[in-house]
Amino acid sequence: MPLLIIGSFALDSIETPFDKVEDALGGSATYIALASSYFTSPVYPVGVVGEDFPDKYLQMLEEHNILTDGIEKVPGTKTFRWGGKYHYDLNTRDTIFTELNVFESFNPVLTGKARKSSYVLLGNITPSLQLKVLDQLENPKFVVCDTMNLWIENNREDLLEVLKRIDVLIINDSEARLLTNEPNLIKAAAMIRKMGPEKLIIKKGEHGALLFQNNTIFSAPAYPLENIFDPTGAGDSFAGGFIGYLHKTRDLSFDNLKRAVIYGSTMASFCVEQFSTKGLEELDKLQIHDRFLEFRELSRFDDDE
Amino acid sequence: MPLLIIGSFALDSIETPFDKVEDALGGSATYIALASSYFTSPVYPVGVVGEDFPDKYLQMLEEHNILTDGIEKVPGTKTFRWGGKYHYDLNTRDTIFTELNVFESFNPVLTGKARKSSYVLLGNITPSLQLKVLDQLENPKFVVCDTMNLWIENNREDLLEVLKRIDVLIINDSEARLLTNEPNLIKAAAMIRKMGPEKLIIKKGEHGALLFQNNTIFSAPAYPLENIFDPTGAGDSFAGGFIGYLHKTRDLSFDNLKRAVIYGSTMASFCVEQFSTKGLEELDKLQIHDRFLEFRELSRFDDDE
Repeated sequence: MPLLIIGSFALDSIETPFDKVEDALGGSATYIALASSYFTSPVYPVGVVGEDFPDKYLQMLEEHNILTDGIEKVPGTKTFRWGGKYHYDLNTRDTIFTELNVFESFNPVLTGKARKSSYVLLGNITPSLQLKVLDQLENPKFVVCDTMNLWIENNREDLLEVLKRIDVLIINDSEARLLTNEPNLIKAAAMIRKMGPEKLIIKKGEHGALLFQNNTIFSAPAYPLENIFDPTGAGDSFAGGFIGYLHKTRDLSFDNLKRAVIYGSTMASFCVEQFSTKGLEELDKLQIHDRFLEFRELSRFDDDE
Repeated sequence: MPLLIIGSFALDSIETPFDKVEDALGGSATYIALASSYFTSPVYPVGVVGEDFPDKYLQMLEEHNILTDGIEKVPGTKTFRWGGKYHYDLNTRDTIFTELNVFESFNPVLTGKARKSSYVLLGNITPSLQLKVLDQLENPKFVVCDTMNLWIENNREDLLEVLKRIDVLIINDSEARLLTNEPNLIKAAAMIRKMGPEKLIIKKGEHGALLFQNNTIFSAPAYPLENIFDPTGAGDSFAGGFIGYLHKTRDLSFDNLKRAVIYGSTMASFCVEQFSTKGLEELDKLQIHDRFLEFRELSRFDDDE
């Protein structure tokens, strides 16, 4: 069964203190699919693009063995465009413009193949669309979901419905606090897990990530990057590495989930080293495993007794 | 040779969202000495208190095998007092008042025993006093130094002199950024190490701590505390656990420094679980080692290949 990914395909215009690009490949489904493609196949992203979406981008995805027949090109429309500018410390960004275009009427209708998927990544789209996808799944075994502050604030009811029907929620620390109105992340995590998802991942940017399940917590370090060129897509790359590794190994034990979190962090670290999707386009498995081992060395310590 | 600790003794008035106390035992030397006393002896703090400093506090320190003859009680003076109020999220605090009192004329003159100390913890006092202490040391082998935003902003030249003469600087992330004007912590760390200290620890509060030496980084997780009652003294407890463990083991290898960072984090986690120094007063070695092992479980993951 393919790894099903629902999300956006976009053309991003990004400015950082180091450089700027226009109409570069972006979108949550793009990053998730690319990151997961290094671990497993078939990867099956579902989304929409406009007539102006360059064929070369589809070709690049296909070269990563990503199935592209779930990416609908709608005649007479333009692709979703996002423009953002990152500040000096790269931790904050301003959205310069958002042109939803064809994405505004995105209505994910799954093909028979997609409906049978048991591993599903619901990228960051409106909770009502995430629910539509959930309704079409015939045998959801492991559903991972991303969301954002906008939906937490404006679409809370739909989001709470989604939370009841997923296995893993991936959000960042400020979103966890926003969702629960609780500043302590450990308490916030317990509250979110009561809302539905058995497993929760809280991403903390330069401070790593936390994985919660039952009364167990795993604290993953952040890769010490001196030069972050473009943070766009880091969260999606994390999600892609995480679910891609689990889709390959089919092992949902806590020990394997930990490894999946580290592979997610690994893919995020590669992502931000270059603009747009460039950091995810030319990797190989050895490189990825080497970085996994670097993560281990970074956080490993022994008892002396 | 004793573990020499220079710092403040204070009477703290603290308000948190949970409770408030007045004239509770505080001060950097207090927390450092208490935390280190669980690992090694003799612990020899040097500081000043006023006539009003309760004997029971000195007795409590002595019950932890801490030598108190370096704590000078100056007749006709009052003890340093600090009042602070923590906000809802406990990450920010307002200083309500600072009464330096006897601490204003603190002039650390070391006895012969203290001058011979090879392991020294320079707590958070003005860099000019830290330099005075350094000038009196006959055989400094391992000097650990704490500082704060106030000295970085107002006493920069003296602080830069101190940095040239110490082995480890312990600061928090915002202080590291302030000292270097560099938002990226990895770059900031390299810049600080060029200022002098071979080893650097950057504390990140709820996100753990980073240890830097040569081209190696160790990322220590934070203990997942649901209830932080009083963050006062967390940084000093960290420093005390760190140097106390190293003073005991006399092993400055990177692997042992990692363990020392975890023991520092352990003591900080105990500290913030209760008001004032209460969290550090009734521990035992087994409890401390158990929490050390919890830290290990929190961050441990294995390769699958």
